Amino acid sequence: MRFHSRKWVKPEDLNANHTLFGGSLLRWIDEEAAIYAIIQLGNERTVTKYMSEINFVSSARQGDIIEMGLLPTRWGRSSLTLRCEVRNVFTGKSIITIDEIVMVALDDEGNPRPHGYDSITFDRDRVPARLRIERVEPPVR
Amino acid sequence: MRFHSRKWVKPEDLNANHTLFGGSLLRWIDEEAAIYAIIQLGNERTVTKYMSEINFVSSARQGDIIEMGLLPTRWGRSSLTLRCEVRNVFTGKSIITIDEIVMVALDDEGNPRPHGYDSITFDRDRVPARLRIERVEPPVR
Amino acid sequence: MRFHSRKWVKPEDLNANHTLFGGSLLRWIDEEAAIYAIIQLGNERTVTKYMSEINFVSSARQGDIIEMGLLPTRWGRSSLTLRCEVRNVFTGKSIITIDEIVMVALDDEGNPRPHGYDSITFDRDRVPARLRIERVEPPVR
Amino acid sequence: MRFHSRKWVKPEDLNANHTLFGGSLLRWIDEEAAIYAIIQLGNERTVTKYMSEINFVSSARQGDIIEMGLLPTRWGRSSLTLRCEVRNVFTGKSIITIDEIVMVALDDEGNPRPHGYDSITFDRDRVPARLRIERVEPPVR
Amino acid sequence: MRFHSRKWVKPEDLNANHTLFGGSLLRWIDEEAAIYAIIQLGNERTVTKYMSEINFVSSARQGDIIEMGLLPTRWGRSSLTLRCEVRNVFTGKSIITIDEIVMVALDDEGNPRPHGYDSITFDRDRVPARLRIERVEPPVR
Amino acid sequence: MRFHSRKWVKPEDLNANHTLFGGSLLRWIDEEAAIYAIIQLGNERTVTKYMSEINFVSSARQGDIIEMGLLPTRWGRSSLTLRCEVRNVFTGKSIITIDEIVMVALDDEGNPRPHGYDSITFDRDRVPARLRIERVEPPVR
Repeated sequence: MRFHSRKWVKPEDLNANHTLFGGSLLRWIDEEAAIYAIIQLGNERTVTKYMSEINFVSSARQGDIIEMGLLPTRWGRSSLTLRCEVRNVFTGKSIITIDEIVMVALDDEGNPRPHGYDSITFDRDRVPARLRIERVEPPVR
Repeated sequence: MRFHSRKWVKPEDLNANHTLFGGSLLRWIDEEAAIYAIIQLGNERTVTKYMSEINFVSSARQGDIIEMGLLPTRWGRSSLTLRCEVRNVFTGKSIITIDEIVMVALDDEGNPRPHGYDSITFDRDRVPARLRIERVEPPVR
Repeated sequence: MRFHSRKWVKPEDLNANHTLFGGSLLRWIDEEAAIYAIIQLGNERTVTKYMSEINFVSSARQGDIIEMGLLPTRWGRSSLTLRCEVRNVFTGKSIITIDEIVMVALDDEGNPRPHGYDSITFDRDRVPARLRIERVEPPVR
Repeated sequence: MRFHSRKWVKPEDLNANHTLFGGSLLRWIDEEAAIYAIIQLGNERTVTKYMSEINFVSSARQGDIIEMGLLPTRWGRSSLTLRCEVRNVFTGKSIITIDEIVMVALDDEGNPRPHGYDSITFDRDRVPARLRIERVEPPVR
Repeated sequence: MRFHSRKWVKPEDLNANHTLFGGSLLRWIDEEAAIYAIIQLGNERTVTKYMSEINFVSSARQGDIIEMGLLPTRWGRSSLTLRCEVRNVFTGKSIITIDEIVMVALDDEGNPRPHGYDSITFDRDRVPARLRIERVEPPVR
Repeated sequence: MRFHSRKWVKPEDLNANHTLFGGSLLRWIDEEAAIYAIIQLGNERTVTKYMSEINFVSSARQGDIIEMGLLPTRWGRSSLTLRCEVRNVFTGKSIITIDEIVMVALDDEGNPRPHGYDSITFDRDRVPARLRIERVEPPVR
């Protein structure tokens, strides 16, 4: 599992009990999953179709730095299933886990579109049509 | 199932594909579930512990009015399980369904606190301690 | 008066004095009034034209749950006048009252458009044109 | 009437009809009025108590630059009444007018506190207690 | 230097250390600079091209009222350079200073477009094309 | 330079010209820099003190996915200087570059506090005091 985006828990992210608002966390995860799937499937119109059980393992507090990890676990015809874990950067303590987030690539009519991939790329070489012309060279990692 | 809060889908709620951002929707649902559980359990420190499978049945678009419905399905010792459906107010079309959202009432130390209830109240008579003194009469429905 | 949408007062809703920011409250009310009027007039292009006196009766604090109530009081040719009250869900204490919020239905050119209604519907049967085709059955209340 | 704060209408400020969301506008006005009153009354705990009729004269669109004007019209014992107009910076067209916004200065218990002023200052010489020690010299206008 | 827009530092503007989040401040400044440049250059498509060194001189706290000042320092062919200072309204204490913010006016293709001005206007007489027809009279200052 | 957090440009992030609002971008960068510095310096009270020239190299549009990169370039006594680049994930095109962002670690009184480090850690072993007790094991990368 690779951890990319991080968040610094600020007052705007808290619920009325001074802990991280679960809704904010779910919002961050949904964006992170969309980003991950768009990069892997090369399709900008990729949507969240399903999430399996979500366990709110522990809460986070103001000032905590958290990171979001995703791991592809199943490559469907037009879908990609991701496992997700969010944890505290310093303590490693798990905050939330989601076994399956199913992202589906769509065509222009909103129907599932086969993506043709069955493994992870680290090269950002699945470039959405809109952006191909602007790509001069692959971003160096 | 009773539908309370409604939302008007505005540009700030959209993803980059001009449909309702799933993360925004989950944020709304989490707040609605917290509100519902606090009213039923009379404990302001009630947190989301678990969500079962989430089905993103259909998307919503800018201008859509949606409403969020919750129904208690299981009364645990310190928990309350809710079923959730969000739908379009006019078409009745389902947008998202969640079979189980488990809310847990906590004590001051953050441990589960028994709530002693096993059925719905419509009277808002389970008033959190902080607010009891200010309650002059029950709100008329 | 029927109370629909509820809010849980979180840090992001507070002013610099740790009470509910009046501007946030007005923002919520304006959205709620638009939603109410669109449902009653069946016109998605319904705008706030006028608000009568606003009384900030009492303030709300972090953690409070509030609910917003609206009641139609006058059916104009292209307008609908609403009375509004926001109150604390538990104490019933009034937070804000507005005697008249005048919502006006517009046509495509932005001019007032007669709506032809003079009483409340509870059936969501005044469906905006854009959504009629998608309505398979009336949402069950 | 003096016009201070300006806003650039961005997508985040729009309603579902692509015009400026009235609720956003009211949010901006309430903050501007609080700022104005705190500067004039030298009391950081100044709250909005009342607004008279609000006329939504015309709408604004994405890209418009608007400015908010306030004018003191009555100096009460613990209150200050302001007239408000928001207009388009370029066309001068009025967007919203509010004849009376009544701001009230409070003491630590939340009761009205006499302010002792009856006219406008342009010198920012009514410095709230918390900030007096940090003031080395009056800000040059 | 003229100070226009003001902000009241609220919980939503704080970082996790209870002081004004620098990112919020930079967001406000960027909007203020865009507004200033659009008014002076009469071109709605004016973008931030460059900022010189930014000094975070002192921090601000919840409840502080700050004001943002801008001063044109160089009129380029299609650009306008602004000096910026943000300070506390009451203490006059500087919060942030930026020597140069370069704003560039663009044409429809996104290329620099000469603006033809070399001095400040206070008359809002450089009206963007889109708005000229709606201008009945110059706004009175 | 390592690229961590990513953003998906949504309507809420746009300016009135339909491109990424520079202020939003600066807000994201400032948070990312704070996160980076806190992890490297092990001090939760680390603030942005200075940014060198900011070049807005190219703009981003709705739907773009961007990533933020940071690289330590100077280890001061109580400071850490970072170089920053934000780029498009697919095209590799640079969006913004900042040569120096100086972050300073503070003590409880708000004065600079020496951190004692002169090189990067990848082990998250510089744990802020508040969190040390909760750390059971180092997070696996």
